Amino acid sequence: MPNNHSNHSNNSNNSNYSIDTIRHSAAHVMAQAILRYYSSKGFKVQLGIGPNIENGFYYDIDINYKITESDFPLIESEMLNIIKEDLSITRKILDRQDALHFFSGLEQTLKVELIQDLPTSEEITCYTQGEFTDLCRGPHVKKTSEIPVHFKILSVAGAYWRGSEDQKMLQRVYATCFNSANELKDYLNFIEDAKRRDHRKLGRELDLFVFDQHAPGSPFFLPNGAIIYNELIAYIRRLYRKYDYKEVITPQIMDAELWHTSGHYQNFKENMFFTQIENREFAVKPMNCPGHMVMFKHNKFSYRDLPLRYADFGRIHRYEKSGSLAGLTRVRTFTQDDGHIFLPLYMVQDEITELLTMYFACFHHFKFEKIKINLSTRPEKRMGAEESWDYAEEALIKALKANNCEYNVNAGDGAFYGPKIDFIVFDALKREHQLGTIQLDFQLPERFDLKFVNKEGELERPVVIHRALLGSLERFIGIYIEHVAGAFPFWLAPEQAVIVPVKNDSDKQIEFANNLSKKLRQLGFRVRVDSRNESMNLKTRQIQTSKIPYMLVVGDREVDGNSVSIRKYGDKKSETISTIALLELFDELMKEASVG
Amino acid sequence: MPNNHSNHSNNSNNSNYSIDTIRHSAAHVMAQAILRYYSSKGFKVQLGIGPNIENGFYYDIDINYKITESDFPLIESEMLNIIKEDLSITRKILDRQDALHFFSGLEQTLKVELIQDLPTSEEITCYTQGEFTDLCRGPHVKKTSEIPVHFKILSVAGAYWRGSEDQKMLQRVYATCFNSANELKDYLNFIEDAKRRDHRKLGRELDLFVFDQHAPGSPFFLPNGAIIYNELIAYIRRLYRKYDYKEVITPQIMDAELWHTSGHYQNFKENMFFTQIENREFAVKPMNCPGHMVMFKHNKFSYRDLPLRYADFGRIHRYEKSGSLAGLTRVRTFTQDDGHIFLPLYMVQDEITELLTMYFACFHHFKFEKIKINLSTRPEKRMGAEESWDYAEEALIKALKANNCEYNVNAGDGAFYGPKIDFIVFDALKREHQLGTIQLDFQLPERFDLKFVNKEGELERPVVIHRALLGSLERFIGIYIEHVAGAFPFWLAPEQAVIVPVKNDSDKQIEFANNLSKKLRQLGFRVRVDSRNESMNLKTRQIQTSKIPYMLVVGDREVDGNSVSIRKYGDKKSETISTIALLELFDELMKEASVG
Repeated sequence: MPNNHSNHSNNSNNSNYSIDTIRHSAAHVMAQAILRYYSSKGFKVQLGIGPNIENGFYYDIDINYKITESDFPLIESEMLNIIKEDLSITRKILDRQDALHFFSGLEQTLKVELIQDLPTSEEITCYTQGEFTDLCRGPHVKKTSEIPVHFKILSVAGAYWRGSEDQKMLQRVYATCFNSANELKDYLNFIEDAKRRDHRKLGRELDLFVFDQHAPGSPFFLPNGAIIYNELIAYIRRLYRKYDYKEVITPQIMDAELWHTSGHYQNFKENMFFTQIENREFAVKPMNCPGHMVMFKHNKFSYRDLPLRYADFGRIHRYEKSGSLAGLTRVRTFTQDDGHIFLPLYMVQDEITELLTMYFACFHHFKFEKIKINLSTRPEKRMGAEESWDYAEEALIKALKANNCEYNVNAGDGAFYGPKIDFIVFDALKREHQLGTIQLDFQLPERFDLKFVNKEGELERPVVIHRALLGSLERFIGIYIEHVAGAFPFWLAPEQAVIVPVKNDSDKQIEFANNLSKKLRQLGFRVRVDSRNESMNLKTRQIQTSKIPYMLVVGDREVDGNSVSIRKYGDKKSETISTIALLELFDELMKEASVG
Repeated sequence: MPNNHSNHSNNSNNSNYSIDTIRHSAAHVMAQAILRYYSSKGFKVQLGIGPNIENGFYYDIDINYKITESDFPLIESEMLNIIKEDLSITRKILDRQDALHFFSGLEQTLKVELIQDLPTSEEITCYTQGEFTDLCRGPHVKKTSEIPVHFKILSVAGAYWRGSEDQKMLQRVYATCFNSANELKDYLNFIEDAKRRDHRKLGRELDLFVFDQHAPGSPFFLPNGAIIYNELIAYIRRLYRKYDYKEVITPQIMDAELWHTSGHYQNFKENMFFTQIENREFAVKPMNCPGHMVMFKHNKFSYRDLPLRYADFGRIHRYEKSGSLAGLTRVRTFTQDDGHIFLPLYMVQDEITELLTMYFACFHHFKFEKIKINLSTRPEKRMGAEESWDYAEEALIKALKANNCEYNVNAGDGAFYGPKIDFIVFDALKREHQLGTIQLDFQLPERFDLKFVNKEGELERPVVIHRALLGSLERFIGIYIEHVAGAFPFWLAPEQAVIVPVKNDSDKQIEFANNLSKKLRQLGFRVRVDSRNESMNLKTRQIQTSKIPYMLVVGDREVDGNSVSIRKYGDKKSETISTIALLELFDELMKEASVG
């Protein structure tokens, strides 16, 4: 029974049908084509389910033959035939017994199973086109000729029947369909581009990280990856210096009692790792906040010390199911550019203004130009006084307006402990990723009984702002690799330049290259000399594949002129510049690392 | 029964007795004095044990009165009386029944308990001086007048009878005694100095770190402490850059299987924390090595890539009993400046030479001038071929000699997996601390089946060198705080300078101070302005107490002359220098951070 799960609707101007309906009908056509083609070859074909999904559709097939990419054109050709045959698509209501009898007769046992599991109250409908009838809720187009010919089979993958490992493995054939050739072409380009940018693929190719069976969801950052990781932290530290944050270092394993106090034990236990020490239960931290509350309490602060901004690059651990782990974007251990700001309510608006400036500076720095802001306001179930919520929400709105920020309001979507702002960036493929958040919290200060001495000399409860700019560094690296397609900006590139002597046996060229490399390295640049006994072509190709920002070629002419022939990544041409100009260029490029 | 546990013997020239014997006798005199004095006040005094220890002695007392520092002179005065009385000290052998009868008669029930627990084979001896008789094995001086008057009661603390929490809490009175007034004075100065330098005390005073009941043995580094922590890592990274190390970032929680492979499960399990994930047993890493072995295996290396030097600042966790935790020097979680070098056996000597250069540069950088080296060679139980041991030990010795390093050989003291070199530094109080180690390892490459392609194109097993310079950063910070008495060098100081306007209400001075501060901060210096409405005296005192390297005072004269009145920490005098000279001075001071 093809289901229609997707709420995503790519409505088109060229059709009276929604794109979802069109794709759903295309799924039927694909199933019919597969049945026709493979039955004619003597294979028995059983159909599972075939829903439309975001950007396309699939059908699950049970067949004693391994479908490969080379089969796609044959299936597509049969699909085209069915469309051309202009078959009427008709809907019919069956009673349960008739339906069971009909699909049993076709030996479609998977469909029989589906019917058996339908609630007795549910109407059973089938759609028929030519010789093909499918169990289906609909709706569909009226005739096969209404399905645009701009379809494409994309891939095939294994999928357990009904998503259960105990069941049979079927073959899931993915495809898509659009209203116009251009839309299809754009989408196919998008897929190609996404594949090319896939951070798991680039992670391997650029020697950034590996995963190992001994630590699921826990990346091993190789030297190149660790450079990016540490440079990101260094960049965030420069921001922290500018915006007056104080970095702290806190324990990772703390008594379960603390997590009871913070509420994580009650609300987040399933995602936490526990260990026993001397008959006490300890938890590996899934968040830094409780540690910061503990630190705040160890000191006596006055209003003069506030806002107090703690920053922490502590490693955190959260349980995620093995099955849901994916590259760097879904991991079990990560580091956030995490911070907590302690302040009185009246300082909130100014602080949010400051935060917005910092956030935009950061996102723009990484060339995320389009940013969406969601403001989530008080939910039904909440804590904290109404006037605090009034004040806090108004402060957020005022700060957003003062900074000319457009934002969407997600009314009632705030956390029960306070309102929040989420920042969503659009990557080079226009995909949305939530990065930073700013969350106001009335609850933790209450739970930890935090106090500061206010202007009147009285003890007052502070508000806490939880904030992260990039969020999980691991996840950010995954997103960013795809955003820049692995071609990192100069300041962040694991290797910034490779110096290549034209002749591998020229002492003069090699000496010049080594001296230049030494000089650049002393200045802090990440460069090396490639004087291996390999061809210039091979070296050039390797440097291109590694997406190293600059290749510096040194021949006799360059040695004599104290210059290099420089070629930027992505450029086809080189130009010769003096080593002084090279240093100036590199110095200039390093300004990209600055927070201004 | 006073025992003599200490092997430490401070022999003196002025006496026929060992200092241990003298102190042991002084312990008797102190017990006698306490008995005399408090009995005369109507208190019942019971004696526990009273051994000599390193640098002194103590006696455990059960009395229904809280002994405090103000009582010390009274006890000392009575001790002096006893010495002056020139009492003979006589030894007597008692049979068990007589001894029990004798001490029961004195109502010394703790002594009775001790006698009851003595093996029946043991001879029971008592020493008597005047009215005082103590159960004791001896030896002692012949008469009380032979005890030098250079004694001193130092402190009193609670101590469980027989060291067991189930037993009564006694009062342990610590004291010492020397052969000369000068030795006593030196020792008292040493104690004062050690107290003054105690890193736990300074950690609080300088706002470096706190501990919390929720995370025993797990420091919370406050902003000031985190600066030192991060600057140390930055310094080590500069060394790594110079010596061609590649930093990596590895998981903290890995499958128990890995720890079986590495052997840690079998040999180190009691010190590891475990957690369950999806019915698999995982361990929190107590060491980084297995993770590095995994990474090495994920790649194919040739001899050209070796030595391959992985560095890792990963957080590690090891269980230590609550009772043995102490400040930063005995913790449950810490970060090492850890590294593993993969190389063929024949490269070992050159690599050790390089390591020695690096180690000495590092230790001298922190002003540890005296360094002791211990070389530990093959133990009886060991793995690896004899010729590998021959080669490895010889390589270590050759490298040590080539670097003109004096060293002690601890024959047979190496690990079963390879020989090692330990580095012991002497701190400002001449106390020894082991910092770095260099350990050769034949075993892990075997257990993980590591291979590289050698010059002949064949697969060869590498050797691994485990190495850390400072060892645990936490422990090093503890040691270093005491070494420098909390007065950090400029490059490492959490705050490098404070600018103080002479008048808190002078806009001109405050503006000048703020501008100077801003300029210095932009250049990366850690400075602030103190324009609080407080007196210059208070501010000066606070800056001194915080051991901030420089105080910069700004009056009208300084503003007009674009200068500051600068006072270095520890100096009594200030001098006026131009702000240009100040920048030059600070730039010059920052060179201390360089690795050359």
